Amino acid sequence: MNSLLDLPTPSLLLDRDRLERNVRRMRERLASKGVALRLHVKTAKNVEVARLAIGADTGPITVSTLAEAEYFISHGFTDILYAVGIVPAKLARVIELRKRGIDLKVIVDSVEAARAAANAEVPALIEIDSDGHRAGIVPGDARLLEVAGALGACCAGAMTHAGDSYNVRSVDAIRAVAAREREAVVECARHVRAAGITCNIVSVGSTPTATFGESFEGVTEVRVGVYVFFDLVMAGLGVCAVDDIALSVLGSVIGHQRERHWIITDAGWMAMSRDRGTANHAVDQGYGLVCDAHGRPHDDLIMVDANQEHGIIARRDGAPIDFSRFPIGSLVRVLPNHACATGAQHRAYHVLRGGRLADTWDRIGGW
Amino acid sequence: MNSLLDLPTPSLLLDRDRLERNVRRMRERLASKGVALRLHVKTAKNVEVARLAIGADTGPITVSTLAEAEYFISHGFTDILYAVGIVPAKLARVIELRKRGIDLKVIVDSVEAARAAANAEVPALIEIDSDGHRAGIVPGDARLLEVAGALGACCAGAMTHAGDSYNVRSVDAIRAVAAREREAVVECARHVRAAGITCNIVSVGSTPTATFGESFEGVTEVRVGVYVFFDLVMAGLGVCAVDDIALSVLGSVIGHQRERHWIITDAGWMAMSRDRGTANHAVDQGYGLVCDAHGRPHDDLIMVDANQEHGIIARRDGAPIDFSRFPIGSLVRVLPNHACATGAQHRAYHVLRGGRLADTWDRIGGW
Repeated sequence: MNSLLDLPTPSLLLDRDRLERNVRRMRERLASKGVALRLHVKTAKNVEVARLAIGADTGPITVSTLAEAEYFISHGFTDILYAVGIVPAKLARVIELRKRGIDLKVIVDSVEAARAAANAEVPALIEIDSDGHRAGIVPGDARLLEVAGALGACCAGAMTHAGDSYNVRSVDAIRAVAAREREAVVECARHVRAAGITCNIVSVGSTPTATFGESFEGVTEVRVGVYVFFDLVMAGLGVCAVDDIALSVLGSVIGHQRERHWIITDAGWMAMSRDRGTANHAVDQGYGLVCDAHGRPHDDLIMVDANQEHGIIARRDGAPIDFSRFPIGSLVRVLPNHACATGAQHRAYHVLRGGRLADTWDRIGGW
Repeated sequence: MNSLLDLPTPSLLLDRDRLERNVRRMRERLASKGVALRLHVKTAKNVEVARLAIGADTGPITVSTLAEAEYFISHGFTDILYAVGIVPAKLARVIELRKRGIDLKVIVDSVEAARAAANAEVPALIEIDSDGHRAGIVPGDARLLEVAGALGACCAGAMTHAGDSYNVRSVDAIRAVAAREREAVVECARHVRAAGITCNIVSVGSTPTATFGESFEGVTEVRVGVYVFFDLVMAGLGVCAVDDIALSVLGSVIGHQRERHWIITDAGWMAMSRDRGTANHAVDQGYGLVCDAHGRPHDDLIMVDANQEHGIIARRDGAPIDFSRFPIGSLVRVLPNHACATGAQHRAYHVLRGGRLADTWDRIGGW
């Protein structure tokens, strides 16, 4: 099988040439900044992508679920950070994995969770809130030293994620978010150390801040994931170009709605996800930007709506479409708003190399 | 295992008592209207739910993917309608299934697809557009008889789906949509028969129109799916009550963001989906309505935002939360906006009966 025509539709396509370019660029950038890359595997959830991205077989990686940890351990990975706040009920599974010699670390932002991790002798990083975006301890909050004290010898470091970098609209603004991300966690690590508690790892990360951050002074590692594939959200922020996007969904034209000037495809939200991450961007890409079967964008076409197994494609300006260019059964590829969300709708990647089908790679799901 | 505390979080819960009540009510309604139920299995994608809903082991059912068809055939189902416009490339798979004695029918709305189905001797229903919502032939369009003519002896009937019933805001409006849905397809079937072409099946369906439609005269079957679980979109339309909703996502509290008055959970959009189907409703339910571990709603709490593996819960009015009621590690259940989308994020149902864990049921995915 080496033709797209042999694939069922919808299918998830991965352009390996673009993937390799993306991962090489990030590795070179972080190497030039003298900071380690701890790949976040929540985007790809696949071992081949992880090996290409880090150029190593055992880590370091970041996971978003213990199912990811178990999958990567089964493929020989040993250096893993589980970067969603641990709850005591999950520590038994963590301990089991650590007993097998895996350096699996967790994160905490409360005294309760810190005590549970310390009792279980599981090393933990303290989660810092650098931008009011989600979880973590705000710099200056007295609870920082309470949590560090509760961890004691299990304190492995401090980490933060500048989720706000997805909401800003210029490279300068991303640089400012990156500076705050770095300063917040470096300052907290300094406080913890000043209290006599070890705090070796200083971890930051988001694709925008990793791409544009100027200084990583005091930082030991960068956690970054979506850059392996990129997506329309990242392109809208100026973090990548549209032709860096390595992931797309292959669909078949199943109908023409002449009254509405719509092409109907078999790639609906089940194939694309419900993610509308570009809705507030300067250019709203709908459910995705439409390309031909070779991946060349039809810049005038977007997927304007989605039902479960129906995609609706129209011109941005709503004008009539020349349906003779898109006969029933012809193929389109749709670039996703959000690679993590679109990837999650599929169980495998169909990998293209030099434009031809070369491999099928699996994807882990669940928790 | 019979306690929720034994489940990993996030997990998908299915309340069998509510499910049984929902499916009994729909069966009784359609029986009283003298019309057959052809369950749409795209919501549940599970054989136990299908058997309960139709009270039979072989069909009739509607599928949205050929993977669903193959799964249900492997469990003994034989009467199946694949209700997404067929493309010629998929007919080989349909023919293989039909050779095994399965009565698998497809749908078409173009002369090209109709010719391909007729050449393959696969029976097809003509898709009718009753509300300008998606695919299908508009009543009065001359292409209706061209498509019917191309099908010839393979014309099995006509079908429509009143997708617009999800967009209206009152029971009276749903009744009006149901009347148009029925009239459109009955009229088209009459035209086809008047041209001397057999058109036995007359098929309509959506949960709102099936629930409130007054007349099914001339209709032979109703395709309906989401009613088995219901969801907040259906509750917002007045099609069900909140305590009819049989599906929920179990999550653990992993943190308290005191500055923002947020509870952070481990049930993010990966567990809930990105579906924001109530965004335009009179009551916007965010990413879902929050209940306690027993499924009793906290009416003041909704899931206001979602990251991949983080849910953010707050009061609707943004006021401070008494965090002592939601300690780290405690459980919450979140009712979904859209049962089809939330279900698709999971590979199994944890089935509750009388409030206790009783079973684990699988879910089919993919295409």
